[in-house]
Amino acid sequence: MTVPAPGLPARVRIHEVGARDGLQNEKTAVPTAVKAEFIHRLAAAGLTTVEATSFVHPKWVPQLADAEQLFPELGDLTGVHLPVLVPNERGLDRALGLGATRIAVFGSATETFASRNLNRTVAESLAMFEPVVARAKEGRAHVRGYLSMCFGDPWEGPVPVHQVVRVAKALLDLGCDELSLGDTIGVATPGHVQTLLSELNEEGVPTDRIGVHFHDTYGQALSNTLAALQHGVTTVDASAGGLGGCPYAKSATGNLATEDLVWMLDGLGIETGVDLAALTATSVWMAEQLGRPSPSRTVRALSHKE
Amino acid sequence: MTVPAPGLPARVRIHEVGARDGLQNEKTAVPTAVKAEFIHRLAAAGLTTVEATSFVHPKWVPQLADAEQLFPELGDLTGVHLPVLVPNERGLDRALGLGATRIAVFGSATETFASRNLNRTVAESLAMFEPVVARAKEGRAHVRGYLSMCFGDPWEGPVPVHQVVRVAKALLDLGCDELSLGDTIGVATPGHVQTLLSELNEEGVPTDRIGVHFHDTYGQALSNTLAALQHGVTTVDASAGGLGGCPYAKSATGNLATEDLVWMLDGLGIETGVDLAALTATSVWMAEQLGRPSPSRTVRALSHKE
Repeated sequence: MTVPAPGLPARVRIHEVGARDGLQNEKTAVPTAVKAEFIHRLAAAGLTTVEATSFVHPKWVPQLADAEQLFPELGDLTGVHLPVLVPNERGLDRALGLGATRIAVFGSATETFASRNLNRTVAESLAMFEPVVARAKEGRAHVRGYLSMCFGDPWEGPVPVHQVVRVAKALLDLGCDELSLGDTIGVATPGHVQTLLSELNEEGVPTDRIGVHFHDTYGQALSNTLAALQHGVTTVDASAGGLGGCPYAKSATGNLATEDLVWMLDGLGIETGVDLAALTATSVWMAEQLGRPSPSRTVRALSHKE
Repeated sequence: MTVPAPGLPARVRIHEVGARDGLQNEKTAVPTAVKAEFIHRLAAAGLTTVEATSFVHPKWVPQLADAEQLFPELGDLTGVHLPVLVPNERGLDRALGLGATRIAVFGSATETFASRNLNRTVAESLAMFEPVVARAKEGRAHVRGYLSMCFGDPWEGPVPVHQVVRVAKALLDLGCDELSLGDTIGVATPGHVQTLLSELNEEGVPTDRIGVHFHDTYGQALSNTLAALQHGVTTVDASAGGLGGCPYAKSATGNLATEDLVWMLDGLGIETGVDLAALTATSVWMAEQLGRPSPSRTVRALSHKE
């Protein structure tokens, strides 16, 4: 039943991360043909932004070592944005060379995670991104800036809001078109979400340049999303079937499942363009490829044999 | 990190249903001594309302056939409310005879579920509850009225709000002190929740007599709870470890896990009196008794061995 609630956006753009953020956390690499079919099926289910892969060095993310082979397989997907993650200028060259028009860089709000994940300080990582973003913009590519550990960090604990705001602004100052605020270990709660969004607004960052990226480690992703929608956010990251998650988080449960998100948005009458049945069928199919059930509550409920 | 959000209550009373609603859905009965220890541990973790058992005929719920043996085992729990479910006058007599001071009756907002679960029409079930509630009130017992299928029904589909309001008012008119609005199959979304609460208010039902009872079948329980808190609700049902669920729902995932709820409320600075670590340890222990892991995201994350 569709029952709108006051003060929520009419439409939400789902930034689907399953093919990149999900599959990069699989123990073994998924065949390129399966990835290509996954992305085609996600697009056919109505997702208009499907993060496709990462042009990071295969040594670091062997699961996505086939980016050069995969990306050309997606050339027939017209009208669907296919952003790719690039870690540095070398990755950017590879992505642009294959015709990518949307790229993403992956920053950290905390020093410890920057050090562990990027082997750099936060300042050094921003310096590394500077030419990447500049050259991407020169090439007329759209640039997303991921900002991880925006709420809590496994080593540092709670992350001060002003620290997140500082790095967020720095990413925008480099030229990023949008931010994705990541609750990488899933600890956030709704007041924290709204406070961070308000502080960003006060420091001049408009809500329409902010996406949210919640993890369901403690079951909080959807209520945090509701809080973000109430603040006016209209870009929400999610992963089909709940694939993936952060290897540094203490649980196998990771990304917000796209299906759980779509169930809520459908119920609220918020337009996404996504066909929930087709999306669920895609996640059931992908779970069969991976050999284990989806952690998404909605996928499980809708695919349950009575 | 504790970050309040505006417009939320300062304190929430959690109505813990794991020992009754959870264990009544187990395939095999849990030993009485385990149930007693479970309830003692829940109380020790700070829960002040722990629904203990059901005085329904053992033929219908053999899992709780030991109510007469269990209830006296809880006599040492001072300051903790121990409501029990009673289906009819016979059950009420048994409960009052053992000294129960809080009882609950279990109604349905839909005809189909009333017929399937109670073998009566909605009107007939209300007629059956009438002397139960009247005699409970004469005995100075507090009476909760459960109202199931408030949002969707597996046979009837979406349930009209006016229909729920009508039965809710009828239960209050019988003398129920509070209502528990159940999303028995877990299909609700936040706008539907807030609309039902508003309609109840407009028909003269004050929010402080309303509790909410959400199921996590589609991952919606916590965002629906947030919506209810934003409306002013301060009584929330939850089940330790996410035990139980409705056998008529299409998924094994049932009640909102108390731990997932407490994580959110702790983060929002909303007082519950519950010690999350002690509660999680209780659910881990109970999961060992049942021989399978808790479906609660928070229990899994907090008990994960690194």
